[in-house]
Amino acid sequence: MRTLIRGGEVVTAADRYAADVLVEDERIAVIGRDLGSSSLAQGAELIDAAGKLVIPGGIDVHVHMELPFMGTHSIDDFESGSVAAICGGTTTLVDFVIPKRGDGLLDTLETWNQRHHGKPAVDYTYHMAVTWWSQQIHDEIPKVVERGITSFKVFMAYKGVLQLDDDELFQTLLRVREVGGLVTVHAVNGDVQNRMAERFAAAGQLTPHYHPLAQPPEAEGEAAGRVIDLAAIAKQPVYIVHTTCAEALGRVIAARRRGQEAYSETCPQYLLLDDSLYDLPGFEGAKYVLSPPLRKPADQAALWQGLADGSVATVGTDHCSFKFAGQKEMGREDFRKIPNGFNGIEERVNLLYSFGVRPGRISASRWVEVCATNPAKIFGLYPRKGTIAVGSDADLVVFDPHRHDLISARTHHSRSDYNVYEGLKLEGMADTVLLRGRIVYQGGQYCGGKGGGQFLKRSPL
Amino acid sequence: MRTLIRGGEVVTAADRYAADVLVEDERIAVIGRDLGSSSLAQGAELIDAAGKLVIPGGIDVHVHMELPFMGTHSIDDFESGSVAAICGGTTTLVDFVIPKRGDGLLDTLETWNQRHHGKPAVDYTYHMAVTWWSQQIHDEIPKVVERGITSFKVFMAYKGVLQLDDDELFQTLLRVREVGGLVTVHAVNGDVQNRMAERFAAAGQLTPHYHPLAQPPEAEGEAAGRVIDLAAIAKQPVYIVHTTCAEALGRVIAARRRGQEAYSETCPQYLLLDDSLYDLPGFEGAKYVLSPPLRKPADQAALWQGLADGSVATVGTDHCSFKFAGQKEMGREDFRKIPNGFNGIEERVNLLYSFGVRPGRISASRWVEVCATNPAKIFGLYPRKGTIAVGSDADLVVFDPHRHDLISARTHHSRSDYNVYEGLKLEGMADTVLLRGRIVYQGGQYCGGKGGGQFLKRSPL
Amino acid sequence: MRTLIRGGEVVTAADRYAADVLVEDERIAVIGRDLGSSSLAQGAELIDAAGKLVIPGGIDVHVHMELPFMGTHSIDDFESGSVAAICGGTTTLVDFVIPKRGDGLLDTLETWNQRHHGKPAVDYTYHMAVTWWSQQIHDEIPKVVERGITSFKVFMAYKGVLQLDDDELFQTLLRVREVGGLVTVHAVNGDVQNRMAERFAAAGQLTPHYHPLAQPPEAEGEAAGRVIDLAAIAKQPVYIVHTTCAEALGRVIAARRRGQEAYSETCPQYLLLDDSLYDLPGFEGAKYVLSPPLRKPADQAALWQGLADGSVATVGTDHCSFKFAGQKEMGREDFRKIPNGFNGIEERVNLLYSFGVRPGRISASRWVEVCATNPAKIFGLYPRKGTIAVGSDADLVVFDPHRHDLISARTHHSRSDYNVYEGLKLEGMADTVLLRGRIVYQGGQYCGGKGGGQFLKRSPL
Amino acid sequence: MRTLIRGGEVVTAADRYAADVLVEDERIAVIGRDLGSSSLAQGAELIDAAGKLVIPGGIDVHVHMELPFMGTHSIDDFESGSVAAICGGTTTLVDFVIPKRGDGLLDTLETWNQRHHGKPAVDYTYHMAVTWWSQQIHDEIPKVVERGITSFKVFMAYKGVLQLDDDELFQTLLRVREVGGLVTVHAVNGDVQNRMAERFAAAGQLTPHYHPLAQPPEAEGEAAGRVIDLAAIAKQPVYIVHTTCAEALGRVIAARRRGQEAYSETCPQYLLLDDSLYDLPGFEGAKYVLSPPLRKPADQAALWQGLADGSVATVGTDHCSFKFAGQKEMGREDFRKIPNGFNGIEERVNLLYSFGVRPGRISASRWVEVCATNPAKIFGLYPRKGTIAVGSDADLVVFDPHRHDLISARTHHSRSDYNVYEGLKLEGMADTVLLRGRIVYQGGQYCGGKGGGQFLKRSPL
Repeated sequence: MRTLIRGGEVVTAADRYAADVLVEDERIAVIGRDLGSSSLAQGAELIDAAGKLVIPGGIDVHVHMELPFMGTHSIDDFESGSVAAICGGTTTLVDFVIPKRGDGLLDTLETWNQRHHGKPAVDYTYHMAVTWWSQQIHDEIPKVVERGITSFKVFMAYKGVLQLDDDELFQTLLRVREVGGLVTVHAVNGDVQNRMAERFAAAGQLTPHYHPLAQPPEAEGEAAGRVIDLAAIAKQPVYIVHTTCAEALGRVIAARRRGQEAYSETCPQYLLLDDSLYDLPGFEGAKYVLSPPLRKPADQAALWQGLADGSVATVGTDHCSFKFAGQKEMGREDFRKIPNGFNGIEERVNLLYSFGVRPGRISASRWVEVCATNPAKIFGLYPRKGTIAVGSDADLVVFDPHRHDLISARTHHSRSDYNVYEGLKLEGMADTVLLRGRIVYQGGQYCGGKGGGQFLKRSPL
Repeated sequence: MRTLIRGGEVVTAADRYAADVLVEDERIAVIGRDLGSSSLAQGAELIDAAGKLVIPGGIDVHVHMELPFMGTHSIDDFESGSVAAICGGTTTLVDFVIPKRGDGLLDTLETWNQRHHGKPAVDYTYHMAVTWWSQQIHDEIPKVVERGITSFKVFMAYKGVLQLDDDELFQTLLRVREVGGLVTVHAVNGDVQNRMAERFAAAGQLTPHYHPLAQPPEAEGEAAGRVIDLAAIAKQPVYIVHTTCAEALGRVIAARRRGQEAYSETCPQYLLLDDSLYDLPGFEGAKYVLSPPLRKPADQAALWQGLADGSVATVGTDHCSFKFAGQKEMGREDFRKIPNGFNGIEERVNLLYSFGVRPGRISASRWVEVCATNPAKIFGLYPRKGTIAVGSDADLVVFDPHRHDLISARTHHSRSDYNVYEGLKLEGMADTVLLRGRIVYQGGQYCGGKGGGQFLKRSPL
Repeated sequence: MRTLIRGGEVVTAADRYAADVLVEDERIAVIGRDLGSSSLAQGAELIDAAGKLVIPGGIDVHVHMELPFMGTHSIDDFESGSVAAICGGTTTLVDFVIPKRGDGLLDTLETWNQRHHGKPAVDYTYHMAVTWWSQQIHDEIPKVVERGITSFKVFMAYKGVLQLDDDELFQTLLRVREVGGLVTVHAVNGDVQNRMAERFAAAGQLTPHYHPLAQPPEAEGEAAGRVIDLAAIAKQPVYIVHTTCAEALGRVIAARRRGQEAYSETCPQYLLLDDSLYDLPGFEGAKYVLSPPLRKPADQAALWQGLADGSVATVGTDHCSFKFAGQKEMGREDFRKIPNGFNGIEERVNLLYSFGVRPGRISASRWVEVCATNPAKIFGLYPRKGTIAVGSDADLVVFDPHRHDLISARTHHSRSDYNVYEGLKLEGMADTVLLRGRIVYQGGQYCGGKGGGQFLKRSPL
Repeated sequence: MRTLIRGGEVVTAADRYAADVLVEDERIAVIGRDLGSSSLAQGAELIDAAGKLVIPGGIDVHVHMELPFMGTHSIDDFESGSVAAICGGTTTLVDFVIPKRGDGLLDTLETWNQRHHGKPAVDYTYHMAVTWWSQQIHDEIPKVVERGITSFKVFMAYKGVLQLDDDELFQTLLRVREVGGLVTVHAVNGDVQNRMAERFAAAGQLTPHYHPLAQPPEAEGEAAGRVIDLAAIAKQPVYIVHTTCAEALGRVIAARRRGQEAYSETCPQYLLLDDSLYDLPGFEGAKYVLSPPLRKPADQAALWQGLADGSVATVGTDHCSFKFAGQKEMGREDFRKIPNGFNGIEERVNLLYSFGVRPGRISASRWVEVCATNPAKIFGLYPRKGTIAVGSDADLVVFDPHRHDLISARTHHSRSDYNVYEGLKLEGMADTVLLRGRIVYQGGQYCGGKGGGQFLKRSPL
């Protein structure tokens, strides 16, 4: 099977040039000028990319599909999540396997596999969370790596549920080092967060207004700094997920300047939304509750600067959607019971173009780098994923810089009943999307069918 | 009772000038030129200070007298400790009351009072350690302040014994804030230290060589940074005891630049000794085992620079002496069992002059400031203690810049059988010492009698 | 002659305590409790300081008296300037001798001496400006030091008039090092300033609005950084006058952290006024024209933080007053012709108390330190001046923290017809002032007579 | 004409993947798998790249061909220089047109064109130096840009010859901004350098030992900081050539963190050689004389760290070769007369691989980025030059990571009689080189003929 994407402008993390891209079966076979007339392209299906950009399919390394969390499940499973991702130009997702304290890694992986069975329509892999420590966990870590899962997730917050203490954290770093894996970190001081939330609650301060106040930027900067120091002692790279503020980013920058391998991920919400939303009238603020919380405009500026200068390595979403009705409402009397999270999987690539590339904050190559290439490189998916190169999977997005639309819950593909970016204008949108050579989005319609995604087995770093 | 100190050069944290100092009863009454002939000085006992400096009595805010620790007691009690202090120009000590987990603050204070009863020959007060958390601790904290003890000590290391977790630490900061007290911190990540020590032990690496490796500078910098961040959130000042390295000092400097009230204490051993001593032949290295450990020459340089530029606020000693014979030897098979600590109470003021002022690293005023004035100001003893001012306690040292001697265990006043500064040459030594107007050291002899020290009741800040 | 200042609270750079101060002839003789009844105080004139602070007389190391500048003279000469200074609690001034290009240092010193002859009613000394370079200048520098003038001033701005190029600047640093002097620096890049001003002028942008835009903070930070680097190469201390902004202060902080001897002076106007004043209606903005210009509120915050944490060493005024009528008006058509400068000599000590000590931004000791002690120490006047110590000159201010008033040109002692601080409320004011034991201000009246000031001969550092 | 590079691994600044590269005429036409059998490759000449890397031809943006300098000419003209470049994997050079003070830009360009006429065998362009300022220079700058030269060079050193004062520098920045060009800077404080050199000379200190001492790192850091500040005011990007030390690199890093567009170039000699070479016996040190001078090992480490983390943008060479015999010897009696400069054009790409990529200091992609892609992007040659992309010039290097050799003057292609890298072992070397599709180096032999290079006309940025 052959497909020829003709007349577009190829954008990679380094380059931007006019070329046709010929796909054979699942891979990129040839990149060249005017390939239409060559024997190679004989019989190929044609996609007209004139006036458009051809970019690698987005990789969202931070999503939660159908996650059991806070007494409910996140509303998007791998079925709706895959469709949303693809419609927004993302072709690979990385979900989190999260064992309960006391549960084994492999057993929980099995649970996750069963829950998601037959649903992913994108290619996918997992981060394996370490939420407690024991000889069993120690012994299972290499077995997880054998199953192709090489990245591990630890939480410094969610006390009593997911949070590791420093000894557990340090042991995880040491053990993951032995197996050539990478540790990713939710870096907020959970003891502080918990205590502050309790104090607010004790004082009857229970509205969404108090949600961000219980996790001040210092509590995030502290935790980021701590795990970076522990990783330095363990001589192990570390990846800070969802960086929201100057305090946390500053620690990553300082570590990198010392030559330490530390990465910072941010998310579109931290670049585009701010904490004034928690003060919306009524219970509207609950829609924006996630952890870490939205911050100040000055933090947005610091993150944009970090995106531009390379300090921020990737943009994920932490997509973990809930309905307002019935789910977010669970916390109407107590912000601590509002399920944390919201959408982003569909909007990420388009938003970063519209609000990053178009106004000149970042170049198109940097956009591709943070949305696809760096995620692939850091997490061991490269060069199979994350770039447009001969031999790579033909996960391709024909991106139309002239297509525009307003984001809305009325049209999005998430199952949630609202969208935090409601009303934002996209200027530039994914137009056609290929997953391993197959057209899965075209003409504004998802056309990928059901369950066509593959699990991506990764090798130790 | 009157005493006239005649002809000396008065040195305070700001000033240096020739003047006589007239003491009436326990206090400084008059400072002036040629007071000998005035009516005020009639009948006064004369001390000739010609060619000498007159400085405030040293205040050592970090000592452990007769401390039950690691299965033994530190060898100097308040009797020998007081004599050593006074002979070295120090007239006020601050000891630590350290409850066991589960014990109350007030009960333990009572235990301490009984243990020390009748022994202190210097004026003294306590820091109250918080080593666990409960409603009882919460409730006792204001009662401790009522008893005149306004500084609290927390440990981020010594896991399972003294170490607080972040929640306990944060609650302590919040509670101490309410009572106007100050929190002092042993800042090393105890989880990391413990884990690394266990790993060394498991590998049979049990000599003193491994003692510093289990507490790398990053583990100290991390903890200092953490408690500074927690203190920032709690809006509470914080005082880092025994800072040993650039990593930890850097956090204090950064906090101060942000306008946060954070203090760094260092000790003579971190300025003058380094970690090569742990590799002395045989078991000699055990003599130098303390926590945090001795560091590298580059760290010494950073601390001297901090002393000079004001980043380091005070110099204490962490005096916690043990005999080599019978005590340090307990760890011959395992560095983890070597009692941590050694001498310094007698040497501090003299060493800082000989190795700080004399070679021009710090001025005489800065020496007075870090040895007496800042300790008094930070811990609420000022202006009663810590300076030469009218109305202040006549705790005075006539310091002879020309007196010299070699430090030696043969002549020191500690009960330990060795001295970590053995053989170092002092150039400049305390010559005569007054405690509240009474001569307690003169002619190379302690003459203060027994038990003349007073408990110093302090007020909330 | 004896004077007893009774019942006040003595404040020095380090201490604060209740004591009487006995003055004999020109010096401080005795500091003590209840000296009134002693033989020492017999026959002494009494000054009641109950409820008041007793502080050392202020030292303003940055004033221009009767300066020929921009086609006119600054309106206050040493007569009116001395009165203004004393009425505001300042007893020592340091003026600038500024040779024209081609003029010798000694000849110009003579000119200055003649101009000021008989006028100073405060004690005073000079900084000697180096405004060009030649063998003559090289040879005269040691002779200037012999005459007791040990500080030199260089300008990096005022191109073609006062500005040195880097070679001249570097030679000055090297030469002053040889004679043990100190170099003080007007640090703004004059080439940039000149070029930008010309470009504004060429575009018809001639109102005071453009005055600060021609000297952006980067042009000041650049110059401060440059002279600090040159001083590092020359191994010579350096003192940056009138620091206005974070950019320049940051360079001084970085240098000090490297162990370099670099000082920053700021002035009350940079702490209290901002550049919005240049946009006052009409030509009002001209009143606030000085160089470097007023900056932004964020810069004020950085300077206050520097005052608090010790990064800023001194507060001078750059007092260089002009009348609005006839003088400032010279630049009505062209901001470049507005004489640069305004008042401050009378307001400095009171303002720093009212807006620094009272709201808790700095302590009383720090206020004394930046207004008197540090200036004296840095410029070789200490311990004769700058502190309250036995043997020091009895330059004393009885400061009443409860006296208040509104600043106004109607009541000030400058000859200018306006006051940049008009309407600001002082809460705390100098009440009685002594110069070398003589009362020169009391009961709201200057009573020092004419010309009683002495030239202060200084020794090399 | 077609050429197929078969079986190699393509490396770009972002990617690394196995692919054939098909060249048609002068450009890259197709990149694909197994193109050998396709109709596209019919009749193509084959180059076997199995086991080898295929990288873009190197771009050396800092070379001096046949430069009249210090009373002589640099020994390599564009003929020998082109051969050396190509044999070392470099296919584009950027030379400097350097007018004498008083000479026009266009006239001097004409002189340069005549001197080089017919000689370049690589593609090339010029930086235009601005060495003085006048209306003529102002007016000619846009005309230079019209001729396709969009980068300008200024010198902050070489006083009286090339050095601009700050006003000239600032005007250049402002003017170049208007035409959309880039300013590159030799950043050393020439006044300091000159003065220090004179002082050494006056003291009879005339050996090469004193050459680096006259340009201490602070003099370089100062100048870099200064031009960065001036560029910030002028809102103009700036490129610091031949960064040698932590002091200068630190300024670029700080500027980039503020969001300023500032670039740092370093050279192989600053990464691999150090200032101990100036102390070689006899006059050997003269061989290593260049400006700025070689620095300390700690500076090398800072530069390698900067290369790895992206702070250093490019690696040029400052190739400016002289013979030892007859040229370097001109300074035997006075280091100031030693012609500044030496070789590097042939060694750069190979050295960076052997000492950067092979030991793991930088990745292969980063090597390509600093040697080719970034130079092309920064100087407006991209995407025609600097990458492997469809449509780009087929300037290609087949690089053999297994080929090794010792660097030696006996085998190099420079006309100099010595090589500063003599004896260094290359592990990995350029094997086959194509310039616009034509094989110009193969089998260890230059085969490019004479004068086949093109002038590269660039557009404003």
